[in-house]
Amino acid sequence: MKNNITLDHGSGGLLTSRLIEQEIVSRFQNPSLNELKDAAVLEHFDQDIVFSTDSFVVDPWKFPGGDIGKLAVCGTVNDICMAGGLPRYLSCSLILEEGFPVADLQTILNSMKESAQQANVSIVTGDTKVIEHQKGHQIWINTAGIGTKIKDLDYKYQEGDAVILSGSMARHGASVFMAREDIQLEGNLTSDCALLIDQARIAFSFSGLRILRDPTRGGVATTCLELIEHSSWGMELDEKKLPIDSDVQTLCDLLGFDPLYLACEGRMLAIIDQHQADALCSALGPQASIIGKITKEHPQKLTLKTKIGATRMLRKLSGQPLPRIC
Amino acid sequence: MKNNITLDHGSGGLLTSRLIEQEIVSRFQNPSLNELKDAAVLEHFDQDIVFSTDSFVVDPWKFPGGDIGKLAVCGTVNDICMAGGLPRYLSCSLILEEGFPVADLQTILNSMKESAQQANVSIVTGDTKVIEHQKGHQIWINTAGIGTKIKDLDYKYQEGDAVILSGSMARHGASVFMAREDIQLEGNLTSDCALLIDQARIAFSFSGLRILRDPTRGGVATTCLELIEHSSWGMELDEKKLPIDSDVQTLCDLLGFDPLYLACEGRMLAIIDQHQADALCSALGPQASIIGKITKEHPQKLTLKTKIGATRMLRKLSGQPLPRIC
Repeated sequence: MKNNITLDHGSGGLLTSRLIEQEIVSRFQNPSLNELKDAAVLEHFDQDIVFSTDSFVVDPWKFPGGDIGKLAVCGTVNDICMAGGLPRYLSCSLILEEGFPVADLQTILNSMKESAQQANVSIVTGDTKVIEHQKGHQIWINTAGIGTKIKDLDYKYQEGDAVILSGSMARHGASVFMAREDIQLEGNLTSDCALLIDQARIAFSFSGLRILRDPTRGGVATTCLELIEHSSWGMELDEKKLPIDSDVQTLCDLLGFDPLYLACEGRMLAIIDQHQADALCSALGPQASIIGKITKEHPQKLTLKTKIGATRMLRKLSGQPLPRIC
Repeated sequence: MKNNITLDHGSGGLLTSRLIEQEIVSRFQNPSLNELKDAAVLEHFDQDIVFSTDSFVVDPWKFPGGDIGKLAVCGTVNDICMAGGLPRYLSCSLILEEGFPVADLQTILNSMKESAQQANVSIVTGDTKVIEHQKGHQIWINTAGIGTKIKDLDYKYQEGDAVILSGSMARHGASVFMAREDIQLEGNLTSDCALLIDQARIAFSFSGLRILRDPTRGGVATTCLELIEHSSWGMELDEKKLPIDSDVQTLCDLLGFDPLYLACEGRMLAIIDQHQADALCSALGPQASIIGKITKEHPQKLTLKTKIGATRMLRKLSGQPLPRIC
């Protein structure tokens, strides 16, 4: 562990994992936290409850296709869905920097309201703090959420299980980068930021569903690595099948980004029995596709079968392509 | 509403109330949120659940008697207790500024662990974000918490109901101010930051208990105002009976602070049938005392019977004696 926190500790990559495992999970350990999912399933109550939290620090707070308010509702709602739950209640805790424009706050709160209504969740408790002026006019939002668990998800993979992605990759990361650096591209590169409730409900209906995740910070590659690193299985992604929109590909080519590591904020990654994979894709719609499979070979490793037929290892990044995008 | 957020919007006083009521509750409205308590009671589940959240931005992060980690656990645990719940699960979401020392983070996480163990709650889910270097080496912590509701609390006051405070006032606000301004006083002025579970359990056993609150941001005066402002009752505090330690009084005299508006972080304020008031004080211990009563006169007003027998109106402050102390 370094002596001081660096931006890389927040990238979602290797340093983030180390920080969380060495400093947080090791201290607070309990069965729910140790699973290191984005939400905890609490079996204490008469009915199992899913509990999740996320702080949103995206800079700039507005980006093509959304803003921090939409993100704060979608992010926590989606984490609950990915844990097998249906979201019911959210909290909203605001940290506002002195000088933040009230009109911008209103825009953000309107986005939260709209997304909460779409998700059919109530924002039932909250907190508002104001801090002294820092570097700029910032807002940070924490949402925590409670849902009812309706689907048991476990990591019991089998060889050949399919890896499905519900839509194209990396749009959120790319659009936030464009907003931050004020890059103009032809076309309409917007974030994929969206609720995943409908997609999750569809997936819940499949008996062969193993696990769901939304590939946010760190992108599809980091999420896939997290799904196998504590298992005895490997995963192979097929580069030819990775769904990347041409505008995102253009931006990545220009700037040297790997879209596998750029965040989505409205995509679902599902691992499912190979015999049910086509049916799940059909149910999810034409955007969904099989991008890889669970393998016996290379346990705990993520490999990429490249377009020219070679095999490349994908690892957690120790640096970050894009800081603070979630 | 002003055009830009000011520090006074975070003071817990008048501008905070306006911001929350006009911008937040008006948008997100639902029965739980509209009650404007520090925690929501959710009746959706088989068993009623208490849900609360709080972001902690105290500067400096360390103060005599505690740190932001202890505060982050005690604050949310106490909010659950004050809503009639016993806390079970917490989330922990960290926002770290680039450059924050890892050794300090470890100290803070150790405090969280210790307080969580004392409270018998599990930290089951979390999130860690790192933001670019701002003004200094800062950490902000959000905790959300879930508890089981075990006591129905309502606002059904009766004339003569007693207002009880479980210990002396204003120690937290005073100690954070000393730490921030690096003031040295003789003696040992430490924060009252502490868990209120035991005190809440005691209070729950009284049939005449009307309501519980912890007088944090805005202090005893602001909390009392919040308890009557939407009722048809008034409240009178008795200045002679306000428990103020001599070191806190000295600091307030020196600096012109009113201890009625300085935060506590380990004190319980209870409103209870006058016939059970002495018994509750006895059960809570020698630190607890009756500081006032519910009145028919002056509905929705908080009055202070001063030491010389005069009556003074106490109002929500529009400014703040001490920013960012919770």
